[in-house]
Amino acid sequence: MKIVMDANIPAAQECFGCFGEVVRLPGREITATDITDADALIVRSVTPVTATMVSGSRLTFVGSCTIGTDHVDQMALTEHGVTFASAPGCNAEAVVDYVLSSLLSLAERDQWQLSERRVGIVGVGNVGGRLQERLRAMGVATLACDPPRAAAEGDKEFVDLDTLIEQCDVICLHTPAVQGGKYPTHHLLDARRIEELKPGCVVLNAGRGDCIDGLALRVRLAGKGDITAVLDVWEHEPRIDVGLRDLAAIATPHIAGYSLDGKLRGSWQVHAALARHLDRSVLALEELLPPPAVAELNLQQALAPEDALRLCARAVYDVRRDHDRLHWYTRHQGIEAGFDHCRAHYPLRREFSTLTVGLYGEASQLKGLIQAAGFQTVAE
Amino acid sequence: MKIVMDANIPAAQECFGCFGEVVRLPGREITATDITDADALIVRSVTPVTATMVSGSRLTFVGSCTIGTDHVDQMALTEHGVTFASAPGCNAEAVVDYVLSSLLSLAERDQWQLSERRVGIVGVGNVGGRLQERLRAMGVATLACDPPRAAAEGDKEFVDLDTLIEQCDVICLHTPAVQGGKYPTHHLLDARRIEELKPGCVVLNAGRGDCIDGLALRVRLAGKGDITAVLDVWEHEPRIDVGLRDLAAIATPHIAGYSLDGKLRGSWQVHAALARHLDRSVLALEELLPPPAVAELNLQQALAPEDALRLCARAVYDVRRDHDRLHWYTRHQGIEAGFDHCRAHYPLRREFSTLTVGLYGEASQLKGLIQAAGFQTVAE
Ligand SMILES: NC(=O)c1ccc[n+]([C@@H]2O[C@H](COP(=O)([O-])OP(=O)(O)OC[C@H]3O[C@@H](n4cnc5c(N)ncnc54)[C@H](O)[C@@H]3O)[C@@H](O)[C@H]2O)c1
Ligand SMILES: NC(=O)c1ccc[n+]([C@@H]2O[C@H](COP(=O)([O-])OP(=O)(O)OC[C@H]3O[C@@H](n4cnc5c(N)ncnc54)[C@H](O)[C@@H]3O)[C@@H](O)[C@H]2O)c1
Repeated sequence: MKIVMDANIPAAQECFGCFGEVVRLPGREITATDITDADALIVRSVTPVTATMVSGSRLTFVGSCTIGTDHVDQMALTEHGVTFASAPGCNAEAVVDYVLSSLLSLAERDQWQLSERRVGIVGVGNVGGRLQERLRAMGVATLACDPPRAAAEGDKEFVDLDTLIEQCDVICLHTPAVQGGKYPTHHLLDARRIEELKPGCVVLNAGRGDCIDGLALRVRLAGKGDITAVLDVWEHEPRIDVGLRDLAAIATPHIAGYSLDGKLRGSWQVHAALARHLDRSVLALEELLPPPAVAELNLQQALAPEDALRLCARAVYDVRRDHDRLHWYTRHQGIEAGFDHCRAHYPLRREFSTLTVGLYGEASQLKGLIQAAGFQTVAE
Repeated sequence: MKIVMDANIPAAQECFGCFGEVVRLPGREITATDITDADALIVRSVTPVTATMVSGSRLTFVGSCTIGTDHVDQMALTEHGVTFASAPGCNAEAVVDYVLSSLLSLAERDQWQLSERRVGIVGVGNVGGRLQERLRAMGVATLACDPPRAAAEGDKEFVDLDTLIEQCDVICLHTPAVQGGKYPTHHLLDARRIEELKPGCVVLNAGRGDCIDGLALRVRLAGKGDITAVLDVWEHEPRIDVGLRDLAAIATPHIAGYSLDGKLRGSWQVHAALARHLDRSVLALEELLPPPAVAELNLQQALAPEDALRLCARAVYDVRRDHDRLHWYTRHQGIEAGFDHCRAHYPLRREFSTLTVGLYGEASQLKGLIQAAGFQTVAE
């Protein structure tokens, strides 16, 4: 079979070479002509997959190695009997690592303990759901707000946003951009809610920039300055608000999900779907992933639990690096170019799960916590 | 024999119990009466050891577990045939760790490489000398300025301070407080020299606060803002200049030397001197030191050399923790109380030499560098 794919998809040969001939093209330039004799098309979000493209081809499979699917006319695919697969949640673990790295760093800076805070999660999908799982396993209190899920599942465990804001010390947004409809997310944190945030609270946004009214947030930070902001996503990216950048305790260029593992998992999820489509065997994801540079961290003495977590987290990913890079590049290359540069030249990053933490002697007591946070553990 | 000692000296029993009866007293309260029947007196800097104290006793040994000896009347000791020992350089390795941790963090933040900089060391004694050794072994260019040593040793390798300022990108002060005489260190970096510092340079002071004219430094940082300051020591400690605290990239409360290893080495150096004085055998320092919490960090893939160094350094000591603590405590408890609090409640810190870095696969290439920086290494 012939597989046409975006040249920027990682592990293309490993994931798709096994099925047939792979033709790699610049994603933005893939047109109907390129795929007339293709059996499968694998894209990223820069390639619109339209009804015209599909109708003029013999495609039986379209895959998008992305969590979003707005660029694909799924209706047209269904109509033409073409199987479709994307990679939902492929980088969700990376975003959770980002959140934990950020909160652990702030906790150290501002002398608090994560275990004493209640974390509110807004948007409990692939990212928010995994965040809630890890935090709960770590023994951190959480509250969840997800009206679409609450409506669909009738679950009593969800609270509304105002309750969450009132009862939480940390508020993490993991909502998609939804304009209009019953549950719009545009300015979910609007001026009123930002005004109502409790002094001392932390607001983290790793969902979409326009879920927060950036101007109102800037006003609160510059004025009372009694809350802390962690921002990975921004209104009007890459032309972000410099004032907000400077007031955010952690400011990063939409990279929360940028782990190597997440990128390869995106390819692999589509590989797995195509393998199933062709009734072929699925590669183990582990075979695709290179070994991490940091293989093992061995602890052998009692350590304050959150100090141990911080050590492990930072051995894999220290979010302050990305904060510093955003500041440096936006200062030296201008806001837009700097923001884009940081994303285009993102340093190799692995996920917590690639680190094996050896726990010996008194450190053995930390096993449950370290594992709950997402690391592998080996203990006596 | 009877040994009177300051109750705040760590490992007292382990270091001195083997020689006889140990009596521990509050350092500030030790008087001549307390030592009339003592054979040895072991102090810290809070106990002045005077001629009167010595003449009215049967002491044959006085030890001070400190690098400074200003509180001891050594002339009187010599007159009375009392052997004296202190602990020069006991915490020098900790200060070098501090310097490396600081420079590696700044390099990451500001996108430069330590290997491309020339580091000027002012005051090449126990601290400065060890810093120069480690940097040289790491392949980092250095220049040294130490007029007293240059005069005594006639060594051509030393340069004068103005040459050093002109030729270095990083300037590290490790000079003692010397008022008057031929080589005074008061405001060694005075307003003129601070004005002449090259744009982009880093000034680090871990010697004594008054070696830098703090007001002039503040003016340069607040005005042109084209240099970077790392300050561990300050004029008028603990009443430090808040403006300077806020302008320093790294601001810490005179803790560069505060490793557990350094503190125990101080006791041990005096133990060793007393053992020699009594013709007894000397304990191994290793027997005193508890195992470190972080035992091992294993690297197995190629990493940028300075990224690897940063990882190893931060697994042992991340200076940003102390910077954040100084800010937090001085903001919340007031300048003086906060400064002192950070020192009195300093978190347990170990030295680079306590970490074993395992280097496997492509990471084996990093062995020389990691070792040069002060870590232990195990390689394939
Ligand atoms: N910063 C990054 O690098 C990064 C990485 C991955 C995902 N994301 C973004 O994070 C968001 C979530 O990603 P995901 O993979 O978890 O998506 P998802 O679709 O799996 O989950 C989104 C959840 O938000 C809920 N939701 C929708 N409207 C809501 C509202 N008004 N209030 C509360 N909840 C609402 C949905 O019901 C769903 O459960 C997306 O916008 C995605 O683009 C960002
Ligand atoms: N920040 C900390 O926690 C910390 C820890 C240890 C030492 N210190 C301080 O660092 C300083 C150095 O400590 P050390 O143990 O290396 O002392 P040291 O006595 O071994 O070395 C000091 C060196 O400075 C040189 N020097 C004297 N005057 C000079 C001048 N005018 N210009 C250049 N060099 C001059 C001396 O010749 C000597 O070589 C001391 O003041 C000490 O108190 C600070």
